[in-house]
Amino acid sequence: MSRKVHSSRTEGVDKNVWVEFTQLAADYKAVNLGQGFPDFSPPEFIREAFCDALKGGPAMHQYTRAFVSKTIPRGCVCLPISMVLYLSLVAIFFFVQGHPPLVKILAKFFGRIVGHEIDPLEDILVTVGAYQALFCAFQALIDEEDEVIIVEPFFDCYQPMVVMAGGKPVYIPLRPREGRAVLSSGDWVLSPEELASKVTPRTKAIVINTPNNPLGKVYKLEELQMIADLCIKHDLLCFSDEVYEWLTYDGAKHVKIASLPGMRERTITVGSAGKSFSATGWKVGWAIGSRDVIKHLKIIHQNSIYHCATAAQEAVARGFEREYEVFGAPDSYFQQLPAMLHNKRQKLATCLQSVGLNPIMPEGGYFMIADISSVKVDLNDESNKVESRDFRFVKWLIKEKGLATIPVSAFYSPEHGKEFDKYIRFCFVKEDSTLKAAEDILKKWSQRE
Amino acid sequence: MSRKVHSSRTEGVDKNVWVEFTQLAADYKAVNLGQGFPDFSPPEFIREAFCDALKGGPAMHQYTRAFVSKTIPRGCVCLPISMVLYLSLVAIFFFVQGHPPLVKILAKFFGRIVGHEIDPLEDILVTVGAYQALFCAFQALIDEEDEVIIVEPFFDCYQPMVVMAGGKPVYIPLRPREGRAVLSSGDWVLSPEELASKVTPRTKAIVINTPNNPLGKVYKLEELQMIADLCIKHDLLCFSDEVYEWLTYDGAKHVKIASLPGMRERTITVGSAGKSFSATGWKVGWAIGSRDVIKHLKIIHQNSIYHCATAAQEAVARGFEREYEVFGAPDSYFQQLPAMLHNKRQKLATCLQSVGLNPIMPEGGYFMIADISSVKVDLNDESNKVESRDFRFVKWLIKEKGLATIPVSAFYSPEHGKEFDKYIRFCFVKEDSTLKAAEDILKKWSQRE
Repeated sequence: MSRKVHSSRTEGVDKNVWVEFTQLAADYKAVNLGQGFPDFSPPEFIREAFCDALKGGPAMHQYTRAFVSKTIPRGCVCLPISMVLYLSLVAIFFFVQGHPPLVKILAKFFGRIVGHEIDPLEDILVTVGAYQALFCAFQALIDEEDEVIIVEPFFDCYQPMVVMAGGKPVYIPLRPREGRAVLSSGDWVLSPEELASKVTPRTKAIVINTPNNPLGKVYKLEELQMIADLCIKHDLLCFSDEVYEWLTYDGAKHVKIASLPGMRERTITVGSAGKSFSATGWKVGWAIGSRDVIKHLKIIHQNSIYHCATAAQEAVARGFEREYEVFGAPDSYFQQLPAMLHNKRQKLATCLQSVGLNPIMPEGGYFMIADISSVKVDLNDESNKVESRDFRFVKWLIKEKGLATIPVSAFYSPEHGKEFDKYIRFCFVKEDSTLKAAEDILKKWSQRE
Repeated sequence: MSRKVHSSRTEGVDKNVWVEFTQLAADYKAVNLGQGFPDFSPPEFIREAFCDALKGGPAMHQYTRAFVSKTIPRGCVCLPISMVLYLSLVAIFFFVQGHPPLVKILAKFFGRIVGHEIDPLEDILVTVGAYQALFCAFQALIDEEDEVIIVEPFFDCYQPMVVMAGGKPVYIPLRPREGRAVLSSGDWVLSPEELASKVTPRTKAIVINTPNNPLGKVYKLEELQMIADLCIKHDLLCFSDEVYEWLTYDGAKHVKIASLPGMRERTITVGSAGKSFSATGWKVGWAIGSRDVIKHLKIIHQNSIYHCATAAQEAVARGFEREYEVFGAPDSYFQQLPAMLHNKRQKLATCLQSVGLNPIMPEGGYFMIADISSVKVDLNDESNKVESRDFRFVKWLIKEKGLATIPVSAFYSPEHGKEFDKYIRFCFVKEDSTLKAAEDILKKWSQRE
C-alpha cells in the first residue's frame, strides 16, 4: 500500500523492554530471573477446578452471561400509581461482564477485606488479566490532554496506556531516604511536597502499585492516607494496581487505598488471578470500584473483548470460594505462597550480597532490586556507550555469567531513569532448582573475585 | 466525585441489542434462538486437548512467549565487513503475540487455503476471540476522521469500534434483487455503483463479513472481485470477517478476499476458533495479513492484553493440526459441523414456512432471517409505538409464543434500519432438542391459525 497505514495512536508506544532481554536470555541459555512469572504450576485445587469446568458440559465452552437484570423494587419511592405500575414491569439491565459465580465470590471476598459492600453486578469488571483491567481504566477515564501522575519505578505498561488514551504521564519517583543506610524497600518514599507539586488543573488520576514492581515497596497506611488526601482535595481518581496483594513479608501489611474514607468512590482497584494463584497464563483479572466508575470501563470492555473465557473464570471462582473458607489459615494458598517466597527471597539476598550486589529487601511482591555500584566490571565497550549503565550491566551479566535480570531504569521515565541506573531487578518467584542454578553462578563468581 | 469521570470515547457506544433481548428471553423462559452460539459442546478431540494442556506442566499455566528472534542471514547484502560482523550479532525481534505452536499451524493451514506463504511470526496476531482481532484492527488502522464503509446488515460491533477509533462509519446495504422472488441470501446483492459512490478521499477501509451474520450471504468470487477492484483503485484496506468460513451449504463456496491479486497486502482476515470448533467460550481468535499491517495491530494488542491465555491456544493448535491432516475428509470437523447445520437449517426453514414466516435461505453461517410481513398480528400497543416493527414483533414472539429471536434492523444503521424492519433473525446452531422445542411452538401456532 502506498498510503500511511497505521493510526497515530500506535506511534511512540511500540517499545518494549521485555523483548530484548527475554530474547537475549534465551539466546545465551541464561538462568532466567528476568521476567516476572512463576516457573512452577498453580496449586492442584485450582488446576483441578479448571479441568472439572472443561468437563462440566456445553455451557462451560460457550460465552458466559454478559448481563443480568434487576427489577426495581416496588413502592420504594413516592410516584403516581401508574408510574409505579409501569416501572415494576421494566427491568433494569446490568452488564455483568464477568462469569456470575466469579463476580459473586469476588464481591464477597473483597467486600470482607475492604470493609464495605461490593455489588457483584455493578462494581466489578472481569478482564483478560490485570493488564486489560488497566487498559480499560485508562481508556474509559482518561481523555485527550488529561494528566496522569505515575509513581516511579512503575510497571512499564502504564506509560503507553496513558499515551494511547491521549493523556500525558507526569512522573514522580520514590527515592531512598537520605542520610541512612537503605536496607529495605520501605526506605524508599514519596515526598508529599513533590507529589503535591505535580498536581495541575489537568490532573485526572494518580497511579500507584502496592506491593510495587520492581521495588517491592508495600505502602504504609500513612503513605496511602497522604495520597488519598491529595486525591480527595483535588477530586482525582486513583488507579491502584494490587496484583501482588497477598505477597508481603516480615509483617508488612497490604492496605487497600479503596478502604480509606472518601476513596471508595474514586479508586479503581486492579487484581489478578494469575498472580494470586500462580497462573499467569490463565489471563483472568478484574477491576473493582464504584458502579459510577466501573460502568465506563464496561463500555470499553464491551467494545474490545465482550466476554472473557468461561472455564478459566469458573476455575478462579472455585479458587476464591476455597480461599474464602480458609482465609488466614495455614491451609490458604494466600498464606502458603508468601511463606514459600519468603524463603526464596532470603536465599537470593544472601547470594547477591556475596558478589557485592547489594539487595534492597522487598517488603512484598515477586521482585528484588540490587545495587550494582560495588561490582567492579568494565562496561565501556564502544558499541554500547549510549546505553545506561544498568542496561549494559544486565547484558554483561547475561553474556558473561549466564544470568538474566532486568535493568531498573526501564521502570522510570527518561527524565528520571539516569538517577536510578545503578539497580537491576531479580525475580524470585522461581523453582528452587532455578534459584539454585542462579546461586551456583553467583557462588562461582564470588570465588573468583 | 463531582467532576466528569468518563472519557469522551465512551460516549455513544454504550448501546447493545443483546442485553434487552437475551434478558427478555430469560425472563419469559423462552426457547432461545436469539444469541449466536452453540448450546452443545466442542468436539471431543479438542476438549481433550485442552485438558491435556492443563495437565502438561508449569509452562501451560504461565505466559506463553510473546516474541522470538530471527538473526539476519549473513552475507546476504553487500556491506563493509565491520558492519556485517556487527549485524550478525544483532538479533531482530519479532513480536509473535501468539503461542508459537498455534501461529505455526495457523500459517500452514491458511497458507494452503489462500495460496501464498503466511509467516507465522509476522503475519498473524492471536487475539481474545475474533472480537478483539476486530478491535485491534480498528484501533491500529483507523484514525480520527477516517471513513470506514460497512456493508449492511452487519455484526453490530463494527459500528462502535469505528466510532471508538474516532472514525466515521459509512453504510451501504445489501438489498434483495428486484423483480423476482427472493428465496436465498444469494439474492441479496451490493450495487457496484452505490458502493463506489460511498468512497471519498477520507475512506480508509471497507468491512465485509462472509459468510454474513445475520443474512447468511456467502460472497461470490465476482462480488469479491468488484470490492477488491475498488480497494485497489482507491488504496483502501479491507477488513474481512470470516468467522463462519467453514459453514457453507448447497455448494456455496467460501472465497477469501485476501487470495485475490493485489489484496494480500491490504486485507486483514479475521478468524475464530470459537466458531470453527463450537467453543465460543474459549475466546481464541486471530487476524492474518501482511506483516506491514499486522505489526500495527500487535502494538495495540501489546498495550491492551499482551498475552492471550496459553492452554486454550495450545488446544486450538492441536485442533488445527488434526484438521490439517483430515482436511476435506468426512472425518474433518470442518465437514461435519456444516453437514450437521445443513439439516438443522432445513428443518427450521420448513417450520417457519408453516406459520407464514418466510425464510431467506442462508448460503452459510449460523443464522436465518425470515420475513414477518405475512404474519397477521396486532403489534400496535401504545407503549411500543416508537419501536420499529421487528423489535415489537420479537417482543411479542417472546411474550406470547415463548420463542426468542433478534430483530434484523439492529444490524443496520438508523438511516437504513426502517427499510429492513420486516425481518427477524433465527439462530440454528442449537441442539436438536432446542430446535424441536421451537418446532413444537411453531406447530402449535400454525394449528391455531
